[in-house]
Amino acid sequence: MTHSVLSPAEIASRLTDSRLKDWQYQDGFLTKHFVFKNFQQAVGFWVQTALVSESLNHHANWSGVYNRISIQLQTHDAQGITELDLKWALAAEKILASLVV
Amino acid sequence: MTHSVLSPAEIASRLTDSRLKDWQYQDGFLTKHFVFKNFQQAVGFWVQTALVSESLNHHANWSGVYNRISIQLQTHDAQGITELDLKWALAAEKILASLVV
Amino acid sequence: MTHSVLSPAEIASRLTDSRLKDWQYQDGFLTKHFVFKNFQQAVGFWVQTALVSESLNHHANWSGVYNRISIQLQTHDAQGITELDLKWALAAEKILASLVV
Amino acid sequence: MTHSVLSPAEIASRLTDSRLKDWQYQDGFLTKHFVFKNFQQAVGFWVQTALVSESLNHHANWSGVYNRISIQLQTHDAQGITELDLKWALAAEKILASLVV
Repeated sequence: MTHSVLSPAEIASRLTDSRLKDWQYQDGFLTKHFVFKNFQQAVGFWVQTALVSESLNHHANWSGVYNRISIQLQTHDAQGITELDLKWALAAEKILASLVV
Repeated sequence: MTHSVLSPAEIASRLTDSRLKDWQYQDGFLTKHFVFKNFQQAVGFWVQTALVSESLNHHANWSGVYNRISIQLQTHDAQGITELDLKWALAAEKILASLVV
Repeated sequence: MTHSVLSPAEIASRLTDSRLKDWQYQDGFLTKHFVFKNFQQAVGFWVQTALVSESLNHHANWSGVYNRISIQLQTHDAQGITELDLKWALAAEKILASLVV
Repeated sequence: MTHSVLSPAEIASRLTDSRLKDWQYQDGFLTKHFVFKNFQQAVGFWVQTALVSESLNHHANWSGVYNRISIQLQTHDAQGITELDLKWALAAEKILASLVV
């Protein structure tokens, strides 16, 4: 499946979606920094996003320490941001909404 | 560390703790059935309880399918219910309270 | 996607596949009992099978304690064993083969 | 429990341990880059190190994408490398040794 690269204007427009609060387009990536209650909750979130990655067959860059996780999304093949990245971000937000942070 | 086995009366008394809602003493185990929003949330919960098991060095019996997980607790060495089982159950409830199920 | 139910003879034939060592057809389920080095390894295996479940959109029944995990597979919709169950079992065996148990 | 900060000479000496292959002392952190067979295996490894973090009550900095994970260790409280970091690294190596990468 081919995914078209979104233009900066299209990305900016998509990020006005209230479900994508605090996601930013930066250095070619869609990025968000998450802060959780504690380490356990961060691990629980991260494992759930791993399930998302597998079901979308699309994998994020991630980094973290203790209760903090940062995510960077990009469609490597397309060398830009595509619908796949937005789908991943929306799925992560759905998981976040299921947590009492 | 040795843990004393609690008597059935002590167990019954401890299970009146409102934080231990729906836990039952059955066939020598402390048991609860959990139902989650979906598979992802069940996995997130389960992984967090694995962290609890590791930090308490006390491991539950578990079973599940899709969005359902059942837990059975017993202190194998002591052949009964001890404080360790109650600690595990309370930690699991704290995780549950951090989820929007 | 519809999956046809395999007959007991077809199941027996498929289970002669050397990659499906120790899988049994029992009470309407494909079943295997796994024993791992320790709790950590069991958790690592289980989480990887959760990724398989998500990518196949097919979920196993599982149970376990400490370093032991039992899996029961069935295609609920089809009320029997289908190709989906065999795919899941083969994926689990691939994960197992990547562990030093 | 207080942990003494190791001197650069002590760290260099400890890193000659053959079990700590490819760990480096860099910018104040003990660091290693891991490459796994695939995403599943990376997730399995990462979750197991989360169990280590919880049982040592000591948490690594981590980052990754797909089948790659980088770990950075430091004892934040002590503002340096301590026995805790070496324990974590040795535990991670034990997990790595249980995988066919």
